[in-house]
Amino acid sequence: MSTVVSGVSERLHAARRAARQIGLLSDERKAAVLARIADEIVAASEDIVAANSVDLERGDADGIAAGLRDRLLLNRDRIVALADAVRSVAALPDPVGRVIDERFLPSGVRLQKVSVPFGVVASIYEARPNVTVDITALALRSGNAVALRGGSAALETNAALVRAMRSALESEGVDPDGIQTVDDFGREGARALMRARGLVDVLVPRGSAQLIETVVTESTVPVIETGAGVVHIVLDESAPLDWARDIVVNAKVQRPSVCNAVETVLVVRAAAERLIPAVAGALVEAGATVHGDAEVQRLVPDAVPAVDADWGTEHMSLDLSMRVVDDLDEALAHIRRYSTMHTESIITADDGNAERFLAEVDAAVVMANASTRFTDGGEFGFGAEVGISTQKLHARGPMGLPELTSTKWLARGAGQTRA
Amino acid sequence: MSTVVSGVSERLHAARRAARQIGLLSDERKAAVLARIADEIVAASEDIVAANSVDLERGDADGIAAGLRDRLLLNRDRIVALADAVRSVAALPDPVGRVIDERFLPSGVRLQKVSVPFGVVASIYEARPNVTVDITALALRSGNAVALRGGSAALETNAALVRAMRSALESEGVDPDGIQTVDDFGREGARALMRARGLVDVLVPRGSAQLIETVVTESTVPVIETGAGVVHIVLDESAPLDWARDIVVNAKVQRPSVCNAVETVLVVRAAAERLIPAVAGALVEAGATVHGDAEVQRLVPDAVPAVDADWGTEHMSLDLSMRVVDDLDEALAHIRRYSTMHTESIITADDGNAERFLAEVDAAVVMANASTRFTDGGEFGFGAEVGISTQKLHARGPMGLPELTSTKWLARGAGQTRA
Repeated sequence: MSTVVSGVSERLHAARRAARQIGLLSDERKAAVLARIADEIVAASEDIVAANSVDLERGDADGIAAGLRDRLLLNRDRIVALADAVRSVAALPDPVGRVIDERFLPSGVRLQKVSVPFGVVASIYEARPNVTVDITALALRSGNAVALRGGSAALETNAALVRAMRSALESEGVDPDGIQTVDDFGREGARALMRARGLVDVLVPRGSAQLIETVVTESTVPVIETGAGVVHIVLDESAPLDWARDIVVNAKVQRPSVCNAVETVLVVRAAAERLIPAVAGALVEAGATVHGDAEVQRLVPDAVPAVDADWGTEHMSLDLSMRVVDDLDEALAHIRRYSTMHTESIITADDGNAERFLAEVDAAVVMANASTRFTDGGEFGFGAEVGISTQKLHARGPMGLPELTSTKWLARGAGQTRA
Repeated sequence: MSTVVSGVSERLHAARRAARQIGLLSDERKAAVLARIADEIVAASEDIVAANSVDLERGDADGIAAGLRDRLLLNRDRIVALADAVRSVAALPDPVGRVIDERFLPSGVRLQKVSVPFGVVASIYEARPNVTVDITALALRSGNAVALRGGSAALETNAALVRAMRSALESEGVDPDGIQTVDDFGREGARALMRARGLVDVLVPRGSAQLIETVVTESTVPVIETGAGVVHIVLDESAPLDWARDIVVNAKVQRPSVCNAVETVLVVRAAAERLIPAVAGALVEAGATVHGDAEVQRLVPDAVPAVDADWGTEHMSLDLSMRVVDDLDEALAHIRRYSTMHTESIITADDGNAERFLAEVDAAVVMANASTRFTDGGEFGFGAEVGISTQKLHARGPMGLPELTSTKWLARGAGQTRA
């Protein structure tokens, strides 16, 4: 066993020991631990900002991109906002101990299926120090220990945050080993985390499509895939113009860099002349660039030609692909081919088309006449979001605290044996 | 791409196309398809028995073990029993289309979380031809297509069963590509199945611990781990002698080769003199061999010495390991170390100990005063069993039809955009 593998294994064993204590904490104790974490982060804000400066300087020397630098940056205000987010997770209901099923066997044994913590939740993510705090708060609130691997660009910042949070656990009489980082082990540490079968109960990757692909492919521990959104909106022949225009603009322009933003609009041929000029016009006016097929280019002077790669691309920008399809069948076939099964929406006044779309499209969230931007834990009323699962196992769509729990069956008998 | 990988991929693409049709079948249609499968299997019983003879002859030539040969053998009676099992799955309630959650967003969008089929369910299993029919019936009943990889020892038998079942689909107007086998591609086909990301929605391995370990380690598709049971029963100082004796004997002797059979009995020191002679005596009388630590050997003349390997062993036989522990803490530590998190039980008259055991033990099913043999889909009232999950993601413990479904969120709006 390499030094790194044994080092990671040692920390995960420590996390498992701590998880036993954390898993049995009462609702009140868990809320108190989170409140203390919020306080300690704010109290340590000078240290954290200093550590962050080291990361920023290294990033500047390496020629870090502006967007990445902004995500990396922590200042006093952002630290206060992070602490507030932790307090709001503290205020959420305890997801542990819910009785999900209850039944009596004919022999009289009483069965209950109850929600329990996973044990050790791990996360591999990129240089966003807020995820370090965010995922720790969510994991602890649901009774789990946490093992973190953040991007190396945020190494010092993450270390300072972890120090503050571990000290909060100690102040609350909770084993600080409940929060572990393997950042100091580099890439080899990330790999050891992905292969720590029996020590990591679930691993949640957060970041680019490439990061997620690597984690899914290399892991032998259970993974919840969160993910990229190549999100479509279909406009059928009955789509009201105002709904079509308002929803497409909202879904593209409001926040183009997030996974629930629309990437491709498919317009049924019979509606092309009526809808495309107005919808594309509103997009262009809002600053978007429309990548259109030949038909769209004919109707939209500002459109640039769409290339094959556009249809599978999550632009993360104000770019949008637009295509004319013969009918709903062709729209559904296009979605099957290019969808990442995140969110798909149809704009239609035809209930039959709406219900067919809802039934036939295979995605985490399927909508009729609503903006794809609604796919979000906060919007769904979960109070917090662990990520948006694009897989079908365990969790699908926005994940809240309950998705960080597993279940176990409790059986209470009085000496029964099987006949 | 190798010929095998492209061959498997082609069949899985065909299965996905069929899955779209199967996923939209009504409850009645799915039940009718299963009834037809039962009929066709019985109608094809001569073919199936002939194919089975070829497998048996090859097995005999290879010196197949008696137990394996018995599991491989299909005769007319066994085929009728298989068909009856399919009919009982047909009679189960449809797990698809249940509304699991419903909420309205403040903007008026109506959200529903509904159960949906996975799409393509795959299974890799060993030479038990009954699994071929069993898993197909369960997958189709829950609206899925199925991709099968059985043991090579049952190659001809499985092929005959798949032919009969595909013909049943055709008779019902359902795309026969909903049932696929990759048996003819050998081990490389199994490997291609494990790595068919995006084509297989969930893979359920069934068989030996080694098979399951291989599937979990090599797969990049989502896996539900079913598994080995190193099952413990703890006898504390208050355990009633008759409960202890009856439950331990039932849990070991009734069917020693199954995963819910007990492997290790841990006796708290204060109860050793009172319980061990009687419990071990009853075991020995029932034909079991007790592997005991020094203390157990002192109390049980017939005991053989336990070796270190015994504690982690699923004996699959009338062998049982028995150890004296100082107290409940030591019993819990032993279980943490050796448990496969399948089923654990305590026999006690002390409610405090029972509740502590139920709260602290991390396993799919945790029992007080009941036989571990109750961990079973049939016993739990599920009507059918896909397997017993020993993982924490998606499903834990006995899995019925609902565990072969995923969910999706449906959103119905009237033009809403996100503020």
